[in-house]
Amino acid sequence: MKIVILGGVAAGAKAAAKTRRLLPDAIIDLYTDDTHISYSACGLPYYIQGNFQDYRTLLVRSPEEFEAQGVKIHLQCRAIKLLPDCKQVLIQDLRENRAFLVDYEQLVIATGARPVIPPINNVKLKNVFTLRHIEDGIAIREKALNSKHATIIGSGYIGLELLEAFIELGLKVTLVEFAPHIIPIFDDDISKIIQEQLLSICDNRFEILSSELVTEFFSNENGEVTGVKTGTGREFNTDMVVICAGVKPNIEFAREAGVAIGETGAIKVNKHMRTNFPDIFACGDCAEKTMIINDSKTWIPLGSTANKEGRVAAINLSGGDEAFNGVLGSAVVRCLSLTMSMTGFTEKKAKAEGFQPVSVTVTKNDKVGYMPDVNNITLKLIADRTTGLLLGGQAVGCGDADKRINTLTGALLGRLTVAEFTKNDITYAPPFSPTIDPLLNAAQLLREKIKKE
Amino acid sequence: MKIVILGGVAAGAKAAAKTRRLLPDAIIDLYTDDTHISYSACGLPYYIQGNFQDYRTLLVRSPEEFEAQGVKIHLQCRAIKLLPDCKQVLIQDLRENRAFLVDYEQLVIATGARPVIPPINNVKLKNVFTLRHIEDGIAIREKALNSKHATIIGSGYIGLELLEAFIELGLKVTLVEFAPHIIPIFDDDISKIIQEQLLSICDNRFEILSSELVTEFFSNENGEVTGVKTGTGREFNTDMVVICAGVKPNIEFAREAGVAIGETGAIKVNKHMRTNFPDIFACGDCAEKTMIINDSKTWIPLGSTANKEGRVAAINLSGGDEAFNGVLGSAVVRCLSLTMSMTGFTEKKAKAEGFQPVSVTVTKNDKVGYMPDVNNITLKLIADRTTGLLLGGQAVGCGDADKRINTLTGALLGRLTVAEFTKNDITYAPPFSPTIDPLLNAAQLLREKIKKE
Repeated sequence: MKIVILGGVAAGAKAAAKTRRLLPDAIIDLYTDDTHISYSACGLPYYIQGNFQDYRTLLVRSPEEFEAQGVKIHLQCRAIKLLPDCKQVLIQDLRENRAFLVDYEQLVIATGARPVIPPINNVKLKNVFTLRHIEDGIAIREKALNSKHATIIGSGYIGLELLEAFIELGLKVTLVEFAPHIIPIFDDDISKIIQEQLLSICDNRFEILSSELVTEFFSNENGEVTGVKTGTGREFNTDMVVICAGVKPNIEFAREAGVAIGETGAIKVNKHMRTNFPDIFACGDCAEKTMIINDSKTWIPLGSTANKEGRVAAINLSGGDEAFNGVLGSAVVRCLSLTMSMTGFTEKKAKAEGFQPVSVTVTKNDKVGYMPDVNNITLKLIADRTTGLLLGGQAVGCGDADKRINTLTGALLGRLTVAEFTKNDITYAPPFSPTIDPLLNAAQLLREKIKKE
Repeated sequence: MKIVILGGVAAGAKAAAKTRRLLPDAIIDLYTDDTHISYSACGLPYYIQGNFQDYRTLLVRSPEEFEAQGVKIHLQCRAIKLLPDCKQVLIQDLRENRAFLVDYEQLVIATGARPVIPPINNVKLKNVFTLRHIEDGIAIREKALNSKHATIIGSGYIGLELLEAFIELGLKVTLVEFAPHIIPIFDDDISKIIQEQLLSICDNRFEILSSELVTEFFSNENGEVTGVKTGTGREFNTDMVVICAGVKPNIEFAREAGVAIGETGAIKVNKHMRTNFPDIFACGDCAEKTMIINDSKTWIPLGSTANKEGRVAAINLSGGDEAFNGVLGSAVVRCLSLTMSMTGFTEKKAKAEGFQPVSVTVTKNDKVGYMPDVNNITLKLIADRTTGLLLGGQAVGCGDADKRINTLTGALLGRLTVAEFTKNDITYAPPFSPTIDPLLNAAQLLREKIKKE
């Protein structure tokens, strides 16, 4: 059996390792245009921040370890053309600049995603970065250690993690966000609270320019960025810029070859991670996801999902039978002392999906008020008016916000109604939550609101 | 409508407040043999520890606040005889030492539980305490501030919370536990880990005498405890003793009156918190609970449950219709930096209930290994071999152990199988969990174990 895997960060590396275990005799080749494989890309902001000194800490498994197990690793080799009828892939070696053809019996596409670059004049400059690969992290850290001011364009998860990193490194930061509030993946009311709370933690170290876009960079004679101009005409100096304006799936070569692309723009897969070609699998950030709540299609590229999908692809291509049912869109991000977390549909997304969302938002102590380290958390809970089904939740606060969201995930997975969820028996002791947890409090209020309406 | 409530800590106080809101015109009288009402008994260890200075911080709502809303509060008044046929209760005023009869149309029994005192010779001494009421907490704190050594008998939740409190106050502590390992409500393998981890955190400040019971106290001429003798003949000096050997429900006067007592020894109630008398409700620690997983009867007296039951009793006695489906036995306790948490059935309990439990235990990082504050957590997950149904979990560690247990609660409530639960989408970011959360890792291993067997 000859297995070719394209891509090697999370899904690709997992697929390679799992296939190796399941098919000890298969020939497995992994091609990636990256210079590293099998690393924790999510850890790059913490490397930049200096939580550890050696970037190699991020490597989960080295090419040598893979090779020792008989998985051949081909770094800096990009798949440029796929020939499904011939069961071949054309690969370009980026170092030697020559192309060669590779045969496969089973192919795994795990080519991930790449940063979106917004239309900015004079964008190709030194010290203008994106953060995706290990080299990006190394370069950003090196520059940040010698900078006084950084600009972050976009305030999603990576933008906020970088904000924390730069502040910890002593930089002043300007965060530019096109939406009216930062982290617009949350509902607007929650984004607004996040923005206020972040500024209240540390307002003298960074500024947020919201409802604002960057139109142009200024540069010096060395081709280095020196300043930023925005859509409203604002201009400011900066030593470095990181563009965190989202990502898009790397699917062009697959689409050209007739691999079906889903409505979300990522590769269409079934629960076995198979594409429309029976011998081609796709997994990780390049693949479309299914939302468990209503089986709708979505594209939420996250490392934890990529890992699970790589495992499922490996089992199925090895002759096993394993399904990946989909995602809930669960996510968490820390910025300074603030935790933001969500699962399921936001209210705006639920509406777009045809639900009749009803929501409540509560702000409560995260533990009993007399405990010395008590903090607020704000929790929004969303359910469908007609069926009472829980649809999602969002939490923000300096306390245990992610704990409440994870408690919801099991309920969403079990398709519970909000009335059923009010009966949940959550752990209680004064250092951990108030007697009535904010989550149950919100559920109770939501249940009553639905009853009344 | 004349409503009488007996007991006023958690369930009783909640029932009074909620009934007041639902029935503005009812006459509501609350009788308690306590000197305080509506307080957070769970907070007493933190008062003793000195997290706050004024015990009144523990009061949720004062008698004056209740009175202002028209709920009459009768402190130090104990119900000594119940006459269901006459719809009367005989109350003894403990201060004035006289009894009087009270009429009711609806009665709520929320008389709680009281500490069990093991058979110890010479047990009635000064500086031998139990911890249940506010005066207990005040007396224990006062004595602890003037002591060098304390003995704790029993290592359940309260025993461990007091261990932390005494160590924080600078005392040396001897913890005596009859079982082979501390906190025997957990499975033995987990209790053993808890014991080892606690000792590794701080072994020079306390010792654990397990498989050991206290047979006798020594005292001086002032009637103060001075020492302890154990079943194996060990003797040691001590300045104070707290007996934390469990509690039993205060149900004797109800049983005498013909109120049905369940198999667990607590008052039998239906989902509406009604007893066998249609006009008598019971809630809180004196009432029996239903285990949601298999609808079996259990008695797990916890403050969070008492609150919910008080609310449900109030709604039903006010003419509403609200059910309390039961508990999962979810609990959490902190001792020093260690968190211990559980939900559902332990393996031993599952066996006793007729399940065929299969379990796995994993010890993993609670977040990604390169984060500066990474800690271990040990997680045990239990499912039924025949049906694959999740039965429970236990977690211990210096990291976010309770978070994993709460994530399980929604799944237990939704009666998910372990195979279904492996599909859960838990939040991930390096400060919060590894890419594959220990909970999903354990679920995956458990699923494979069940498949193989």
